[in-house]
Amino acid sequence: MFRNDYGVFCADEVLEALYRVKNEENFGYGEDIHTKNAAKLIRLTFGLKEDAGVYFLSGGTQTNMAVISYYLRPYEAVICCDSGHINVHETGAVEASGHKILTCPNEDGKLTVAGIKDILAKHIDNHMVKPKMVYISDSTETGTIYSLKELKAIRKVCDENGLYLFIDGARLGTALTCVGNDVLPIELGAIADVFYVGGTKNGALFGEAVVINDPKLAPDFLYHIKNRGALLAKGFVAGVMFETLFDGGLYFRLALHANEMAKKIREGLREIGVRLYGNSPTNQIFIYVEKEKRNAVLQRFALEPWGEEGNEAILRIVTSYATKEKEVDELLAYFRNI
Amino acid sequence: MFRNDYGVFCADEVLEALYRVKNEENFGYGEDIHTKNAAKLIRLTFGLKEDAGVYFLSGGTQTNMAVISYYLRPYEAVICCDSGHINVHETGAVEASGHKILTCPNEDGKLTVAGIKDILAKHIDNHMVKPKMVYISDSTETGTIYSLKELKAIRKVCDENGLYLFIDGARLGTALTCVGNDVLPIELGAIADVFYVGGTKNGALFGEAVVINDPKLAPDFLYHIKNRGALLAKGFVAGVMFETLFDGGLYFRLALHANEMAKKIREGLREIGVRLYGNSPTNQIFIYVEKEKRNAVLQRFALEPWGEEGNEAILRIVTSYATKEKEVDELLAYFRNI
Amino acid sequence: MFRNDYGVFCADEVLEALYRVKNEENFGYGEDIHTKNAAKLIRLTFGLKEDAGVYFLSGGTQTNMAVISYYLRPYEAVICCDSGHINVHETGAVEASGHKILTCPNEDGKLTVAGIKDILAKHIDNHMVKPKMVYISDSTETGTIYSLKELKAIRKVCDENGLYLFIDGARLGTALTCVGNDVLPIELGAIADVFYVGGTKNGALFGEAVVINDPKLAPDFLYHIKNRGALLAKGFVAGVMFETLFDGGLYFRLALHANEMAKKIREGLREIGVRLYGNSPTNQIFIYVEKEKRNAVLQRFALEPWGEEGNEAILRIVTSYATKEKEVDELLAYFRNI
Amino acid sequence: MFRNDYGVFCADEVLEALYRVKNEENFGYGEDIHTKNAAKLIRLTFGLKEDAGVYFLSGGTQTNMAVISYYLRPYEAVICCDSGHINVHETGAVEASGHKILTCPNEDGKLTVAGIKDILAKHIDNHMVKPKMVYISDSTETGTIYSLKELKAIRKVCDENGLYLFIDGARLGTALTCVGNDVLPIELGAIADVFYVGGTKNGALFGEAVVINDPKLAPDFLYHIKNRGALLAKGFVAGVMFETLFDGGLYFRLALHANEMAKKIREGLREIGVRLYGNSPTNQIFIYVEKEKRNAVLQRFALEPWGEEGNEAILRIVTSYATKEKEVDELLAYFRNI
Repeated sequence: MFRNDYGVFCADEVLEALYRVKNEENFGYGEDIHTKNAAKLIRLTFGLKEDAGVYFLSGGTQTNMAVISYYLRPYEAVICCDSGHINVHETGAVEASGHKILTCPNEDGKLTVAGIKDILAKHIDNHMVKPKMVYISDSTETGTIYSLKELKAIRKVCDENGLYLFIDGARLGTALTCVGNDVLPIELGAIADVFYVGGTKNGALFGEAVVINDPKLAPDFLYHIKNRGALLAKGFVAGVMFETLFDGGLYFRLALHANEMAKKIREGLREIGVRLYGNSPTNQIFIYVEKEKRNAVLQRFALEPWGEEGNEAILRIVTSYATKEKEVDELLAYFRNI
Repeated sequence: MFRNDYGVFCADEVLEALYRVKNEENFGYGEDIHTKNAAKLIRLTFGLKEDAGVYFLSGGTQTNMAVISYYLRPYEAVICCDSGHINVHETGAVEASGHKILTCPNEDGKLTVAGIKDILAKHIDNHMVKPKMVYISDSTETGTIYSLKELKAIRKVCDENGLYLFIDGARLGTALTCVGNDVLPIELGAIADVFYVGGTKNGALFGEAVVINDPKLAPDFLYHIKNRGALLAKGFVAGVMFETLFDGGLYFRLALHANEMAKKIREGLREIGVRLYGNSPTNQIFIYVEKEKRNAVLQRFALEPWGEEGNEAILRIVTSYATKEKEVDELLAYFRNI
Repeated sequence: MFRNDYGVFCADEVLEALYRVKNEENFGYGEDIHTKNAAKLIRLTFGLKEDAGVYFLSGGTQTNMAVISYYLRPYEAVICCDSGHINVHETGAVEASGHKILTCPNEDGKLTVAGIKDILAKHIDNHMVKPKMVYISDSTETGTIYSLKELKAIRKVCDENGLYLFIDGARLGTALTCVGNDVLPIELGAIADVFYVGGTKNGALFGEAVVINDPKLAPDFLYHIKNRGALLAKGFVAGVMFETLFDGGLYFRLALHANEMAKKIREGLREIGVRLYGNSPTNQIFIYVEKEKRNAVLQRFALEPWGEEGNEAILRIVTSYATKEKEVDELLAYFRNI
Repeated sequence: MFRNDYGVFCADEVLEALYRVKNEENFGYGEDIHTKNAAKLIRLTFGLKEDAGVYFLSGGTQTNMAVISYYLRPYEAVICCDSGHINVHETGAVEASGHKILTCPNEDGKLTVAGIKDILAKHIDNHMVKPKMVYISDSTETGTIYSLKELKAIRKVCDENGLYLFIDGARLGTALTCVGNDVLPIELGAIADVFYVGGTKNGALFGEAVVINDPKLAPDFLYHIKNRGALLAKGFVAGVMFETLFDGGLYFRLALHANEMAKKIREGLREIGVRLYGNSPTNQIFIYVEKEKRNAVLQRFALEPWGEEGNEAILRIVTSYATKEKEVDELLAYFRNI
């Protein structure tokens, strides 16, 4: 299946870890040793200080809403690009928490410094919301990634304007392991005020690990996530899963596999002559297909329709840690024949 | 461990079921066959119509907040007793969704018709919130249960006053399987406008199954839970777990075991002469312990301190599907000796 | 002063009316006879049924927020054009009440049927908010007005898609009395599900009269405005003011004066050769001024800077019921000389 | 009329002031000279620093909601006594802004240090809201006032526990001018973190003046009140009214009159033998009346029914700046005869 990267249960190692501990008894609400160990491993991986807060929530929309409503005062707003997940695909969860999302046009799925500056220039008095946070996702909705230079430039405009930088890492694994990436985990960890590491789309049954760098803001987040209905009673389940994912680099190896499968698909399609949309180097691939062939393709593979341009439809192919090489071969064989 | 009923991972059958399907690919967001099957089994169990909505959320606070904010208009309020979970132990999640909780004194952990009527009598004009929903939990915070007569009386006062009845079933399993219970699942399913069946405290890694009886209200709840950050991407994980729990009555057998262990403890303690607080017939047992012995007890068993009365402390013992008879024997032996 | 239309206290008739009643005692919270009479006069003016709700709030942002959050469920959204007041100049008040604003490009300050349809076409599943209300203002942010044909076309698309139509009438007086308007008050009253008649910008010290056409929705709005902090204790002050404004057509005569002064300015400026921006036929006039002359103009007249195009600045001139012909002559004389 | 203190328009001096300035043009949104002058006079009266923020809102519920939601983070709560206005008579406005109200029993309408400490002792972990603000009103719902000693004791418990102290001064005038009061305006101004001075119930057409003592928190409140729909376009109307009320002590003289009329009623009723409920020294008087006489009394005077005790009804009499001595004599004569 190439429809998305949350269609399979979890990595074998994760399920095995759950099996190993299944008879253990643990403290609830994330006060168990697995959660503490998982937090420690994530701090090590991203080069964070000991007093950085690490919390495990169940999903991406919940995490975005919880983080944004934690950092912002009622009249403050978050900046993102028009294609940002919080703006389009979260059924108004951020607005339901009381905050406006300010958007500017994306460039290849990414937020630009120019876009941020444009929004700042327009929001100058108390009749408009006060921009206070920048939201980006890495990799983005269309699979593209931010270079270190781009991240530093965004960090700079944040510093100059008193904005928090929040990185949605629902697909952080594929961003940090793809060909062309020049950002180290410890660099990303130092650049963001707050970010999360997605488990749902990279090997876990569910779960996103939120990192809050500011030690003054870290402790109360526990109150906040309970207040938002986001505190897991059996936090240790997420604890065991993330402990497994971040022990010995499993998280990145899973993402690497997804990227490798995507690379093979991309190269194969190029060779065949299928035109690609956008410049994703990660596990999402967007292809142009003649409209008249669309239905046939969708009947064979459960791809996500992404839009249309003239006579062509755009379809999305997604790989994951679970994608098998055989499936890739079948996909390429299919396109070779049509 | 007797500290709570969410300290172990999940029932073996549930983990095995996850193992069996682990290589399957599924549609996301609860549109998979496991979720559909689980919903069907729950409808059968509780005697619901085909158009009743069944949704799987991750935890109790989230579910309470999502349901209450779905049914109420901004100026409407929910009635519960002072010891109600939403009033005390959810860090203001219901208020964060915009709604006032109106409370009256509990009787043995339960909301009374007199209490509801008292609140209704006081809220008579538009300078006060409009009571519109009654919230009860079954079993309650202190392990007590509602008789069929009590439920019918509450239903009657709801009907007479245009109130929704919402039953928090985080511990519904133990309520419906304990000695003295006279409520059938199909009776409970018919009495509540909306209720949920708790998985977190009875065999699942996480998850609560919400039932919305009104077919007009059922469909849009899907929008609402996404809006609240409560829609699981890998909904099929909850689907598989609830499918397992409601196939062949596992859910009730697990609860029955918790109740039997509790009964054994209760009877043993009575025999020993330990005084019990309240009249819980379910998996929560509250005991009086002389204050000076409290620390010793807590050092040996991780019980929850529940309060104090004069020279005595009240401690809570909780059993679950995972409680072993050997542990019960050890507990009783300990109390026999002190 | 041409800066805005809320810079003077109130029409003489309104202040005199307050003087006449100043020793009266009244019931609070809008239950007085003045409020009832004002509501009756507004119903007559706009051809409304007796059971239409009429409520008096203190200002525009408050009214927009209160109305929108009354009609929408948590996951529902309101459609407006990008230049809409709720989208730009209300410091996120609508979002603070929990709702997303969906925007499309304006045409001469107006929302178009094509824009509405485009938004509807994009919002098709539960991962996106559900569009449920259309918001327009008449006259618009840039002074333009909707023709009867345009209003009917918007009404039609609302009916076809189950959307409420909400008309922000903060400047409704000038819309209904300007040259070129073809909409009668009773037509407007029949087309909108909910609308308001602005007092703040047309003769009152403060106040907006909200009309709720649906008799089922009308009563509870009183709870809602109290809940939003919008219920005036001394509702009779607004009652007296609106009673005065709608007795004998004062409201429309005041607006007519504003429009006449604007017409004189517009024609004078055209004659002089000052280029106008947009097609406002109402009390807002937008002019192009060479950038280098801007400061001189602003030093002489307190106009609102509205933007820039190439070498030119756009400035806004606003007239009101209080604008004196002498001021208009001075303004024109000034522009004749530069 | 003795029904309430918001049943008449405004003090003659206030209406005359509006007359004097009626042809003036002003900047909107409180940036005018009257508002600035009013703020200055209030700072002088209450001994505040120049950088204390002073803002004018339209009513009490709006002000309570705006202040509380400005100071608290999402999971934080406000403490008040059970009879507090925000808890009972604001249709859930504080909860609608997202915050729980924690209550304890009142003593003669007042919040006690013991009550605050009791709430603090119960709220000890992240499963419960975090108490962060204390709300009191002075004078209270039942007309009682806080002594300086009581205010200092509450301030102390706030300081020791990191709580903000918010004083609702909707009836501050009568509190600070009644017999027995020992609190100077400058003492009150120094004790509260934030408080407001009520105009609606003491001489204005509408309006409450909020004072924010912390210069770091003061500026952004302007964004917040716009975000809450509470920023008045014609702020200068409130400016002129408060400028008049605080020029030469008119505010306190009006309150003094209300208190004197109340004193005369109280002493007269005592002499007649009518029993008083509570110990209000301000403009609210609560009397016991035999139930069978209640209707007759209410037919003659529009009093507010306040409750019942055994065979007696409790009725509320309220005086205001507008109460005439002749009315008082008539009231006393009536009670002398029954």
